[in-house]
Amino acid sequence: LSSQPSPASKPAPQEPVRNKKYDPKKPHITETPLTRKNWYKHVNWLNVVLIVGIPIAGCIAAIWTPLRLPTAIWAVAYYFATGLGITAGYHRLWAHTSYSATVPLKIFLAAVGGGAVEGSIRWWARDHRAHHRYTDTEKDPYSVRKGLIYSHFGWMLMKQNPKRIGRTDISDLNDDKVVQLQHKHYLKVVLFMGLIFPCLVSGLLWNDWLGGFIYAGILRIFFVQQATFCVNSLAHWLGDQPFDDRNSPRDHIITALVTLGEGYHNFHHEFPSDYRNAIEWHQYDPTKWSIWAWKQMGLAYDLKQFRSNEIEKGRVQQQQKKLDQKRSRLDWGVPLDQLPVMEWDDYVDQVSNGRGLIAVAGVVHDVSDFINDHPGGKAMIKSGLGKDATAMFNGGVYNHSNAAHNLLSTMRVGVIRGGMEVEIWKRNAGENKDAMIVKD
Amino acid sequence: LSSQPSPASKPAPQEPVRNKKYDPKKPHITETPLTRKNWYKHVNWLNVVLIVGIPIAGCIAAIWTPLRLPTAIWAVAYYFATGLGITAGYHRLWAHTSYSATVPLKIFLAAVGGGAVEGSIRWWARDHRAHHRYTDTEKDPYSVRKGLIYSHFGWMLMKQNPKRIGRTDISDLNDDKVVQLQHKHYLKVVLFMGLIFPCLVSGLLWNDWLGGFIYAGILRIFFVQQATFCVNSLAHWLGDQPFDDRNSPRDHIITALVTLGEGYHNFHHEFPSDYRNAIEWHQYDPTKWSIWAWKQMGLAYDLKQFRSNEIEKGRVQQQQKKLDQKRSRLDWGVPLDQLPVMEWDDYVDQVSNGRGLIAVAGVVHDVSDFINDHPGGKAMIKSGLGKDATAMFNGGVYNHSNAAHNLLSTMRVGVIRGGMEVEIWKRNAGENKDAMIVKD
Ligand code: HEM
Ligand code: HEM
Ligand SMILES: [Fe+2]
Ligand SMILES: [Fe+2]
Ligand SMILES: [Fe+2]
Ligand SMILES: [Fe+2]
Repeated sequence: LSSQPSPASKPAPQEPVRNKKYDPKKPHITETPLTRKNWYKHVNWLNVVLIVGIPIAGCIAAIWTPLRLPTAIWAVAYYFATGLGITAGYHRLWAHTSYSATVPLKIFLAAVGGGAVEGSIRWWARDHRAHHRYTDTEKDPYSVRKGLIYSHFGWMLMKQNPKRIGRTDISDLNDDKVVQLQHKHYLKVVLFMGLIFPCLVSGLLWNDWLGGFIYAGILRIFFVQQATFCVNSLAHWLGDQPFDDRNSPRDHIITALVTLGEGYHNFHHEFPSDYRNAIEWHQYDPTKWSIWAWKQMGLAYDLKQFRSNEIEKGRVQQQQKKLDQKRSRLDWGVPLDQLPVMEWDDYVDQVSNGRGLIAVAGVVHDVSDFINDHPGGKAMIKSGLGKDATAMFNGGVYNHSNAAHNLLSTMRVGVIRGGMEVEIWKRNAGENKDAMIVKD
Repeated sequence: LSSQPSPASKPAPQEPVRNKKYDPKKPHITETPLTRKNWYKHVNWLNVVLIVGIPIAGCIAAIWTPLRLPTAIWAVAYYFATGLGITAGYHRLWAHTSYSATVPLKIFLAAVGGGAVEGSIRWWARDHRAHHRYTDTEKDPYSVRKGLIYSHFGWMLMKQNPKRIGRTDISDLNDDKVVQLQHKHYLKVVLFMGLIFPCLVSGLLWNDWLGGFIYAGILRIFFVQQATFCVNSLAHWLGDQPFDDRNSPRDHIITALVTLGEGYHNFHHEFPSDYRNAIEWHQYDPTKWSIWAWKQMGLAYDLKQFRSNEIEKGRVQQQQKKLDQKRSRLDWGVPLDQLPVMEWDDYVDQVSNGRGLIAVAGVVHDVSDFINDHPGGKAMIKSGLGKDATAMFNGGVYNHSNAAHNLLSTMRVGVIRGGMEVEIWKRNAGENKDAMIVKD
């Protein structure tokens, strides 16, 4: 199961395509449009057989194969082991180097990861790095922008143009002996770890050869594949975006439950070199727990974590962005610089002529329609009409709530020239010293 | 059950204390400190009997009183009716005038509200207005700052100084005929609606006089009281503060379930004149549903709602406040104006001497410790050392995530004089025209 359908051949050091017939100079089938006549040429028939055909055959065979309890337990256990091979091995160790592993752990992960039948580490990690670097673009091998089904397994069922996928640096993987060996002997690894080993265990230990083959082999492969494919589909489609909403990755507990903890995918795309996908203790991330346990056993080391300060900064920025969007959809009243300027005496005059105006903090508000609704009573609000009600409104009589301030801002009709009454009075006093003495 | 323990007398128009012995000139008992000798004088014994004594007696009597199904159903139904008397009547109609009611509805609410045995409308609404106007202060009759038990019923079990409670305007209630009548005949209303009526219903209809008295009377009163008391205790103690966190009111579904929908108390204190407490359709607010149904039946009108724009403004402001608090606790790197200024040539020199410096957007960063950890590989990041890497970092080679920008800001060590390389070059070119021609 991979984009390498023909039997293994020595791969070119930088290019994991091993198809002998592939000639980069000839036009690739994906460059001719899909029609009624040529559609079957676009289909990757080998992958269709491997991902869809064999599982269906397995389901049918299961009808006549009794499921014994030890085989069921073994199939589930081996499901978790091979799943971890992908999540803790292929993904977090090799694609993202988010921690380092000793050779025994590497061999274990390369073996059980092979048993999940999702291609070699080298091929898988190359595509995955392109997926991170070119997320949601044409160069993303499993871009969800091409549809949920496409990102789930459509990209494997249809032939892909190797030139389309973004290039990434996999020199570190080419230097890794375990990765080299697994890639070279990939078909043997798949056959042995995918089918023979699970069958051997249940055959030798409790004599259920057929059950081991069908349940711990074929059907277990099917479930592991579908579960890990969800990281590319469901995790880019369902859930929240607490760290960045410019691209598709999302966080959701359901995806996490299905994918051994890979469901906090918005976090993961933002902090791909962190060995964790879930950062809260109460979130489900058994892959993280396993890596942590291996560290306690001396098998893993150098577990990388992004500083929590940087993580929280990302969260704060995203929350700010959402809040700004929300704020911009609301009515915050006429901006002060768009209001007409009124003279203080004009304001007082208009009130004596019966308008319900009230001045608070240098701004004139028309409260006529609100007097009868005022929760503090008609008398209270009327006592402020035609006056500078700033102090009254802000605690002198009653310290109004934030809500009252917000409501008030929607009633703006003008600003007082020179600020407030006292300012006007000071100005007049400055012009005419006698007046001041008289007032005093 | 009220702060009016002695038999009814004609109340003074503005002062609902009806105790004949009360003399505002003599020092009140609360003005003498509580001691071992005088503590019993501080206790409001009548209320202790009414709120604690009788319910305990009721529980004991219930042991010998068989509970019949119709009586149980009736007790629960009457629990809801009398609860609504308090929430839809006393609280939202009279204390907050958040809608208007026709006379038949007013009479119904005054009657069933009386059956909840929590004092007259007049007394209740006066205290409640003081609670809103002076929330959490000394003038708040049931301030939660004095303890959860105090706000629940401690304030009724201990004698209160009527002078302490904040004054509020209840002239609208004094003008309301139904309020006047209920206040005048309060003890009759309590006796009939609290005990006689529930007992009559189950006695006359299914001949369960004693059960009606114990279950639909005494125990139902106890449950209604405790439930509505929760608005003053639980609703100021448990839950979130989506609109304002300067005072104690909180929103919580548990409080809502207990109090017929009065549990969205942070909203309610911010928008007390709104007839709703819950504003989302999926929240539990049967009091709101009832008022709405009465409107459909022509019994209620003028249902007041705060504009949703103002409500959302309040929410945005509170979220902003929380976000700002969170932001201020994080490390955002050395502010640019506190960084030393470096010459461009000095920066380039230091890199040739082996320091791992990289200039992005006019700021020099020390990335030495990060080169080996760089998720894009050592080669990539090294290619930017000693250069103006602004374009590379921002998309030229790779468009780094927000997280990468945040991390970068923690590595700041200096700013380049005059901005970036190109600026320096332009300046030099201006000083020496020949150099420019040579370079071109
Ligand atoms: C300057 C004259 C005013 C005075 C003296 C005054 C006084 C009061 C008082 C005493 C209350 C408390 C009611 C209670 O809880 O018992 C109140 C509440 C309120 N007033 Fe005013 N008021 C004035 C002007 C205004 C204006 C112009 C507005 C327009 C937005 C306004 C909006 C409100 C609102 C929304 C409340 C409900 C409680 C709150 O949200 O704070 N008031 N007012
Ligand atoms: C100018 C030189 C740089 C170049 C050319 C460069 C290039 C790249 C590339 C190509 C990737 C993608 C890796 C992948 O997903 O396969 C990457 C990722 C990353 N780089 Fe750089 N980088 C440079 C400097 C830096 C610096 C100075 C920092 C310091 C904060 C940094 C932080 C990161 C981080 C955190 C990632 C992970 C993915 C992300 O969060 O965007 N890089 N870089
Ligand atoms: Fe992804
Ligand atoms: Fe990843
Ligand atoms: Fe309250
Ligand atoms: Fe209230």
